[in-house]
Amino acid sequence: MDSELIPGLIGVLGGMGPMATVDFMQKVLQATPSATDQDHIPMVVSSIPQIPDRTAAFRGDGQSPLRAMIASGLRLSRAGAGLIVVPCNTAHLWYSELQSAVGLPMLHLVDAALQDAVARAGEGVTVGLLCTDATLASGLYVNRTQYLASATSVQWALPTAGEMLESVMPGIEAVKSGALDVGRKHLLTAANALFRRGAQVLVLGCTEIPLVLDDSNAPAPVVDATASLARRTVAWSLSQRAVPTV
Amino acid sequence: MDSELIPGLIGVLGGMGPMATVDFMQKVLQATPSATDQDHIPMVVSSIPQIPDRTAAFRGDGQSPLRAMIASGLRLSRAGAGLIVVPCNTAHLWYSELQSAVGLPMLHLVDAALQDAVARAGEGVTVGLLCTDATLASGLYVNRTQYLASATSVQWALPTAGEMLESVMPGIEAVKSGALDVGRKHLLTAANALFRRGAQVLVLGCTEIPLVLDDSNAPAPVVDATASLARRTVAWSLSQRAVPTV
Repeated sequence: MDSELIPGLIGVLGGMGPMATVDFMQKVLQATPSATDQDHIPMVVSSIPQIPDRTAAFRGDGQSPLRAMIASGLRLSRAGAGLIVVPCNTAHLWYSELQSAVGLPMLHLVDAALQDAVARAGEGVTVGLLCTDATLASGLYVNRTQYLASATSVQWALPTAGEMLESVMPGIEAVKSGALDVGRKHLLTAANALFRRGAQVLVLGCTEIPLVLDDSNAPAPVVDATASLARRTVAWSLSQRAVPTV
Repeated sequence: MDSELIPGLIGVLGGMGPMATVDFMQKVLQATPSATDQDHIPMVVSSIPQIPDRTAAFRGDGQSPLRAMIASGLRLSRAGAGLIVVPCNTAHLWYSELQSAVGLPMLHLVDAALQDAVARAGEGVTVGLLCTDATLASGLYVNRTQYLASATSVQWALPTAGEMLESVMPGIEAVKSGALDVGRKHLLTAANALFRRGAQVLVLGCTEIPLVLDDSNAPAPVVDATASLARRTVAWSLSQRAVPTV
């Protein structure tokens, strides 16, 4: 039905987990210049929490989420989405296969975060990374630097295994359980270690971490990867609005 | 594609406004008994903020939102939703026409709230209503009592025109602008007036009001209509999960 085509309709492939999807949607609202409801961008969201666990699949302990992610992406495509975004770090391990199968343009969460890190701290910056064990071990962030614009490079400062086990993972778990003060203390410990080893900007590559770390308390400027993706999502949608939509 | 049918898939007809949609999704998460992501219910959300303003249409100052709401509902139907819910009070003025056109089961926000009010305060209860001017004037809540189970009745305690202009609407506007303390003071003034006139339970029929009024500070038990709809949405979805889904 052509009459229902909505310019700039975003497809959010969500449910991984469902709270991260809601968090992303809030950041999209915050990133949108708006005076009225109608200024906000249109989105269709497929929030399917039954998609198999991404971390378990990465570790070889569970089935691949790819088939269910493709089904969700095709659902968004049929609903008229012009762009697919996936507000889940670990799900990006299947980014290329997903994009091939769904056939719509996508924005990559890590690209968005790295572009923001370079914008904040400059070319050749040392980026400190705070994320889950699976995100770190998969190389999701460090392997993606090859997709930055050709003249751009970054250096990485990564947590040690001890810091992951003693600070980062306990910090994320504490935030998940609602113990924000405990989580903040653990994650600041890890952030300070990265800062002492030269990190000039901290990329927060996990949904829970921005709930307790921000520019006001971290030892270096922070980039919330989810917010970076939200800002680029809004920019894409607004760029498609050549004419007012109803 | 039958392989993609997801039992209990909820269709959220949203964007009216987009913040109310996110608020509803959060209340769905809160209402779901869950230990893992996979316990949460699957949802497809069509958040289209470009749907014409409902209050303006009710006042005769703008075009009807019905056509755009139907398009959004059909999008959810094509995506496989088995139930449609609309997290916007005023949009329910077009509930019957929407349901006829989309042809899927729906849950009515006001029915959900009134059922919870009766459950909390009993048969024949006097219900105090706090909502916007348009919701009040449209009779959305008071006209819906005829759909309660036949033996059930409620009495209404409604704000006066002066209370609407001096307390309720300024309170809602203050909350919208982020002035929560000012909003709370105004809305407590209105709640206390309803309580003095016999309200035994307060139905909060506007997304902003539960942000500042709750059981801990209101003069009578409160029912958040959005949370009522969320609980019934979760119950419907879980009832459809006869077998584990992937």
